[in-house]
Amino acid sequence: MHPILLLLLLASAALAQTSAPSNVRGGRYPLIHPDRSVTFQIKAPTAKSVQILPAGNDNGMGKGPYTLSPAQPEGTWTGTIPPVRPGFHYYSVLIDGFPANDPNSETYFGWAKPTSGLEVPDPALDFYEAKPVPHGDIRIHHYHSTVTGQVRRAFVYTPPNYDNNPKQRYPVLYLQHGSGESERGWTAQGRANFILDNLLSAGKAQPMIIVMEQGYAIRKGSSSEPGARGNEAFPDVVIQDLIPHIDKTCRTKPDRNSRALAGLSMGAGQATRIALANPKLFGYVGAFSGASPSSVDPKTAAEAKFRLLWIGYGELDGRYNGGKELHQVLDKAGVAHTWFEGPGSHEWQVWRKHLHAFAPLLFR
Amino acid sequence: MHPILLLLLLASAALAQTSAPSNVRGGRYPLIHPDRSVTFQIKAPTAKSVQILPAGNDNGMGKGPYTLSPAQPEGTWTGTIPPVRPGFHYYSVLIDGFPANDPNSETYFGWAKPTSGLEVPDPALDFYEAKPVPHGDIRIHHYHSTVTGQVRRAFVYTPPNYDNNPKQRYPVLYLQHGSGESERGWTAQGRANFILDNLLSAGKAQPMIIVMEQGYAIRKGSSSEPGARGNEAFPDVVIQDLIPHIDKTCRTKPDRNSRALAGLSMGAGQATRIALANPKLFGYVGAFSGASPSSVDPKTAAEAKFRLLWIGYGELDGRYNGGKELHQVLDKAGVAHTWFEGPGSHEWQVWRKHLHAFAPLLFR
Repeated sequence: MHPILLLLLLASAALAQTSAPSNVRGGRYPLIHPDRSVTFQIKAPTAKSVQILPAGNDNGMGKGPYTLSPAQPEGTWTGTIPPVRPGFHYYSVLIDGFPANDPNSETYFGWAKPTSGLEVPDPALDFYEAKPVPHGDIRIHHYHSTVTGQVRRAFVYTPPNYDNNPKQRYPVLYLQHGSGESERGWTAQGRANFILDNLLSAGKAQPMIIVMEQGYAIRKGSSSEPGARGNEAFPDVVIQDLIPHIDKTCRTKPDRNSRALAGLSMGAGQATRIALANPKLFGYVGAFSGASPSSVDPKTAAEAKFRLLWIGYGELDGRYNGGKELHQVLDKAGVAHTWFEGPGSHEWQVWRKHLHAFAPLLFR
Repeated sequence: MHPILLLLLLASAALAQTSAPSNVRGGRYPLIHPDRSVTFQIKAPTAKSVQILPAGNDNGMGKGPYTLSPAQPEGTWTGTIPPVRPGFHYYSVLIDGFPANDPNSETYFGWAKPTSGLEVPDPALDFYEAKPVPHGDIRIHHYHSTVTGQVRRAFVYTPPNYDNNPKQRYPVLYLQHGSGESERGWTAQGRANFILDNLLSAGKAQPMIIVMEQGYAIRKGSSSEPGARGNEAFPDVVIQDLIPHIDKTCRTKPDRNSRALAGLSMGAGQATRIALANPKLFGYVGAFSGASPSSVDPKTAAEAKFRLLWIGYGELDGRYNGGKELHQVLDKAGVAHTWFEGPGSHEWQVWRKHLHAFAPLLFR
């Protein structure tokens, strides 16, 4: 081959590599190759062993751990892992066995701590990317909870032009994260704001407010450690504190037909339980990878007469069979609902797709 | 001593310990003792060495590294470091020499990566705490930059009741972070929102919008790596993109006398340089721990006729002498300015105090 041609080929291959969007500002690694294999580089001159460990058993990065090798420049370790599924994946860097974060990556609150995340773009999907369309704001909103006796915060998405229409009122979707995550998850990992921006720009969803709170809450005066991780008081926070506060401070339509409750995994269980116990408050319910026959009683669901009961699962999800069983139980009992299944496991890429399919059905 | 008395004493001592407010939800360690010594506990069963390393040379946690010892339960390491200055301090956990984050702590973007932080309450100061007063929102605001060709985001504080007064317009403070930090710094580390909430509740400041952007920007078409860390295009982003966008999308008073620019460390240099080059745009300038004779020319400063030129330093700051020299140079040249000095080094506790002293002087 002519050396110039070879150079051009090498240059175009180099161009096709991309630094992960989840890297810190200016970070080259993790580096994603055209076949979606990913190269990591870690500076750890005094470590004896450096490995990449995907979090969980059904991670899109595979099972691992993947062992990195000493490399140049001196003191660095590097390695390339097999092609990764598009989407967002939690991972750790094992330094002599200790699960550290990758200093090259942003952290995302998951697994009950700040955890490194790898975002791998999907060449076939861009519904969750930041596009040149009007953007809504994400408001970090602090409020006092009478139930916990503490200041809590909600992340509140307001749609584009919310400020320009001071007389317009909006329906509200309450949207919950999964176990070990936080109120930051649906925007940082899930990109709920960009999903809605894009749907709204295409006229595919009703303008709505989305309220994302933390699914953990311990009752004031409880004997638990301050800040402990229980969630027994969360339903009361939603009903007694959060909804009244949002209805007071945002321009909501404060009625059942304009209020939805959804969540993923642990949040799906919370959403279905809270909505089934309060059918007068919620007209729409979404359970992303978390509803099962044990959390949804067909008789109660029939009586609730939701305008939409939406249940979704990824086909690789370990709990998929339980979801499918619920779908069949509800069908048999004649309870109207929407069943959604698609590729993927218990992961954010699936939940982005769930929100993208669920939101257009709301408030019609 | 009577055993009951001893028990009571032990119980009250135990009560006086507090988990750091910077810990993850439910995290017991780092644990702050009444004398402000701090106990760390790290689970690292396969590590050979575990140490706590305060970031930087003038950290309120001291110099370190502090070596932890194997402890019970099996696989954990623990140690107590000497009394720490109140405020916020970046640190790492050295695992066999590798600077990892403490899984017990939240991460904060500093030192160009997500870094563990230790928040130590000050028994004598609460002006930056979340109190039962009306809270403004922090809006995560995405916008397109013509200068960089990318979507950027600003954190925008809107004061309490901003939404309830749709005809009121507000002055704006543009407020910048330091080197290696991000647009998240002034709220997560600096608590700018709570500082303003408390000042406003006490009637000590004018209601204002605060805009916090990222001080890094690379011009579109630059040959730098995508996402590289330069800041050469930041002044153009502020003048050509950010201010016009904020004036278009927020209810601002878009004039010099209602616009301030301030920053800390690197951000102080950026604030003074941008304001001195654009004196028709900014009436108020604040330089927190970053102005020096090399960044502020007395003749240019005199001609700019700012309504306020405010310069502050902590007395333990390595650059304090440069700031003091600037103060004297400006005095000698007859340039009106405010000089502020107080305890502390190059640290967030000082910058919280700076904002608390600076904000009440604005827009009078």
